[in-house]
Parts: sequence; C-alpha cells; structure tokens
Amino acid sequence: MSPSSTPILLLPGSWHGAWCWNEVIAHLVPSGRPTLAVDMAGHGLRARRPECLTIRPFDPEELATEVSPVADVDLDQAADLLVSQIERLGRGGPVTVVAHSMGGTVLTRVAQQVPELVAHAVYLAAVMPASGSTAGRYFVLPENAGALVLPALRGDPDVTGALRLDLASNDPAYRRQLRDAFYGDVDPVVADAALGLLTPDAPVSMMLGTTRLTRDGWGSVPRTYVVCARDMAIRPALQRLFVAEADAAFPENPTAVVTLDSSHAPFLSVPGEVARIVGELG
Amino acid sequence: MSPSSTPILLLPGSWHGAWCWNEVIAHLVPSGRPTLAVDMAGHGLRARRPECLTIRPFDPEELATEVSPVADVDLDQAADLLVSQIERLGRGGPVTVVAHSMGGTVLTRVAQQVPELVAHAVYLAAVMPASGSTAGRYFVLPENAGALVLPALRGDPDVTGALRLDLASNDPAYRRQLRDAFYGDVDPVVADAALGLLTPDAPVSMMLGTTRLTRDGWGSVPRTYVVCARDMAIRPALQRLFVAEADAAFPENPTAVVTLDSSHAPFLSVPGEVARIVGELG
Repeated sequence: MSPSSTPILLLPGSWHGAWCWNEVIAHLVPSGRPTLAVDMAGHGLRARRPECLTIRPFDPEELATEVSPVADVDLDQAADLLVSQIERLGRGGPVTVVAHSMGGTVLTRVAQQVPELVAHAVYLAAVMPASGSTAGRYFVLPENAGALVLPALRGDPDVTGALRLDLASNDPAYRRQLRDAFYGDVDPVVADAALGLLTPDAPVSMMLGTTRLTRDGWGSVPRTYVVCARDMAIRPALQRLFVAEADAAFPENPTAVVTLDSSHAPFLSVPGEVARIVGELG
Repeated sequence: MSPSSTPILLLPGSWHGAWCWNEVIAHLVPSGRPTLAVDMAGHGLRARRPECLTIRPFDPEELATEVSPVADVDLDQAADLLVSQIERLGRGGPVTVVAHSMGGTVLTRVAQQVPELVAHAVYLAAVMPASGSTAGRYFVLPENAGALVLPALRGDPDVTGALRLDLASNDPAYRRQLRDAFYGDVDPVVADAALGLLTPDAPVSMMLGTTRLTRDGWGSVPRTYVVCARDMAIRPALQRLFVAEADAAFPENPTAVVTLDSSHAPFLSVPGEVARIVGELG
C-alpha cells in the first residue's frame, strides 16, 4: 500500500490528452490509491481541431492562417474545469495534482484559488510561473535556449490564436523534429503513436493569463518540482528558474526537487519512475 | 463504497484506445475501486499508422492498397497482452474485465485461457463469438443488417490486412457517416474529438482467430452482456444473437443482460450509466 490514500489527479500539458498518463496510472492503481487522468480544457476529448490539417488538397496557407477553434480557451476556463475535476475526484477533500508542462500554469492558478483542495502540487517539467507572470514570457528566456518546440510551430499565433503543430505532415524531417522536441528518449514506435494522439492546436490565450500568488494561497501548498534533465521542450535551466523564483518568493515553503534523466515525456519513457515519485508524496 | 473491491479493467474495441473510457473511470474511481483502462494490441499508444493518411498530395490509391503496419496483430498476440494487463492490475487475483466491441473477442479468448483470473466478463456492445467462430463471421449476418461500419471502410482488407477508416478525410458526408456509425447519441463536438483520437487501421487477423470454449473455461466465468439498443456498428439483434448462442452452449451459466438506450459509444454518451452497471458487478 502507498503511504497515503489521498487521490491523485494527473493533468497533461499542451497538445496532450489524459491518454499520455496511462502507463503511470497502470503503475499506481494496483497500490489502491485512487488515480485519475483528465483532459485539460481544449485538449483530448475536449479538443476542437482546425480543418486545415484535413483539407484535400493540403493548403499551407490555411495551415498558417485558419483561426483555431480553441482560440477562446483561456486560463480562467482551464482553471474552472480543473477545480471541478478536483472536486469530483476528491469528493470535497484535497487531492494531489500532478501537472505536466503547460498544465502547470493551470495548477498554479487553481492552487492559489482553492489551496485547501490541493494536498500537494507536483510540477513535472511544468510551467510554474511567478506571481503575475504569463507562461508565454518564459519560453523565450535564455534559460530555454535550444528548445525545439517553437521552431516546430506553424502559422502566426497572433492570427490563429494557437500554437499549431502540423501533425498531419508526413515529412520525415518534421516528424523527427517533433519526436526530438517531446519524446527524445521514447521508443520511436511509441513516440509515433503518441504523435498520432496529440491535438494540433494549443490555445494561446491560456499562455497569456496570470495569477497573483499569495502566501496563504499558492504559497501555502506543498510543492514538488520534477526536473527532466534531457528536456528539449522546456529546458532544464528554465525548470530550475521556476524553482528559484518560487523559493525566492516563498522561502518559508521551499520546493522539493527531484530530477529524472528523461525527455519532456517521462510518462512514456520512465512511467514507473514517475509513479514511484508521485506515489511517495502526500 | 462499491460492493466489491475487485479491480476493474476496461478494454476498448477496434480503432479506439484506453482514452475512450476516461469518463467512465472518472465515475468509478471516487468509489475507491481500482480501475484501469488499457490499450488493445495495435491500438492507442500501441498503434502503428499507415502513411497513406499523411501523404501530400493525398493518394486514394495508397489509401486503398497500403499494407497496414498492424496487419500482423492477431488474436494470440492480443490475448497475451490482455493476460499480462490483467495480471498486473490484479496482482495475481481475479479482475472484472469490461470489453467493448472487438475487445470482446479478446476477452473471450482470455477468459477461456485463464478463467481463474476473470472475476466477471462484461461485454459492452461487444463481439462474444461462439466456440470456434471468428468475429468476422458475425458482421455480415442478417442480424447486423443496417450496420454503418462496413460501408465506411476504405481499401480491400485482403490487400491491406486492415479494416481501414479514412480518418484524415475532411468530407462532411464521410465524417457524418463515421459519427453515425459510432457516436449517434454523442455530443457532435465530443464525437469529432473522439474521431480525432481513433487510429485508422484495425487488424483483420484479429477477426480471423477462433477460440474453443469449454464448460470449465469460458463457460465457467460469470458474464454480463450490456446491449446498446441504438447501436449502428454492432446492431442490437446481433448483440442478442451472441447472448442466445452463449446461453444455448452453456445453459447452466446464463448471461445476465442489461440494456442501455445508447449508440455504440455509451462510454461517451452515458458514462455514468456504464459506471453504475459495472460498479454493481462482482
């Protein structure tokens, strides 16, 4: 049995759906701890896809300019959904929330809003923005140098409202670029299957939202940051910057840091290790 | 709390992945019962996709003839995987297995092989073949008249080795056909998201496998059949034929039958009802 019976809720990041956590869940469930993955707003079974990827013949102009059907999904909406998902799983009690990548921004907002419902906030290679900072601000910092996601985006986000991946592309170089960005240490066959399950558009609005963090709010919630040391989407130096900013702002509640020698997708490459880390937390 | 603590394993059917069960799991997990969805062999994160859907420009000839990368996936392989998934979840003890659609064929094989590991076999609008019968045999019976899946297939299965859906098509009539076949009572936005998560190829080999059923094997396992009364993929009359054949062969262990007023995808349209039915079983 695990040392805690607190339910665990797993939140994916941009482009991913609840499906990405399945192997982690397979490791956690036999311990008897209630565990559930959910879709983030605008993703997974809540995704709406642009038509540009399925138009025949393919039109690069459409890919570059079609306004995303999820352009309206903002941080408020994503946070409202996560609160309802936590309330449902926890039945009013606190839940340990594990957020990946962009999901971290939503977790930060929610932990500030309802700190009493978040037993532990776990950031897995996740965006953990400082008070008043947008997620988007961080991606272009020097600490994120070498990241491979921005060069893989298609179209102008100011026009489309989305960070768009051309997931219908059969160009081997582009597909390689996507695998390198997200799944560098994942079995290439599994990585291809994962690319097939991604949704093309991540809403830009979500990256422009900010949250004012307080000592009694987000600052009061126990948090763990899992650094992925070979991450090519959110570089390790940026992950450590999130931790440094948080610890500077709330020194009385320092971040517990664990490091995995993995890409941005440890839920696929080392799911047992992710489960072990999460399972040992309160 | 639910009346049983037997773990529940959820197995999708053709084209679907573990993701399709997510709302059902969300209803089951708070009760504390260990619940896990898995991918069937060749599907979800175990899928391999043909290139024909991503070639630019699109080539209908490739769609019709490309040999499927999952053409080798047969019933033996699918059953071996399911046995390992059951053993992992149950830690050696029995598990209630809920199979959808083609997943039923795999469940039947496994319940015959290791009846001691299947606490209850639940067929949700699933193929439940009689002893020595292939799954494929049933789809063309008069009891399946009006089913909408076969007309939506592309290419010759004898050539491709797959039942192939053109999931990259943007043709509104074809997309409507797919929605009608699988998701008639599902919110159209959710149905479109689900179509985006399907994999295009379901291996034909899996439909050609047979299992010899015995009284001490499959015949000894408690079973429930959930008939979906508005199913346009496996018609209700065919679902009732499966039950009639099973009860004729093993009258001492009759099938418990429950009916849902749903399409082929009650996990999306009425997930709470699916969870209630499953949660009340041993």
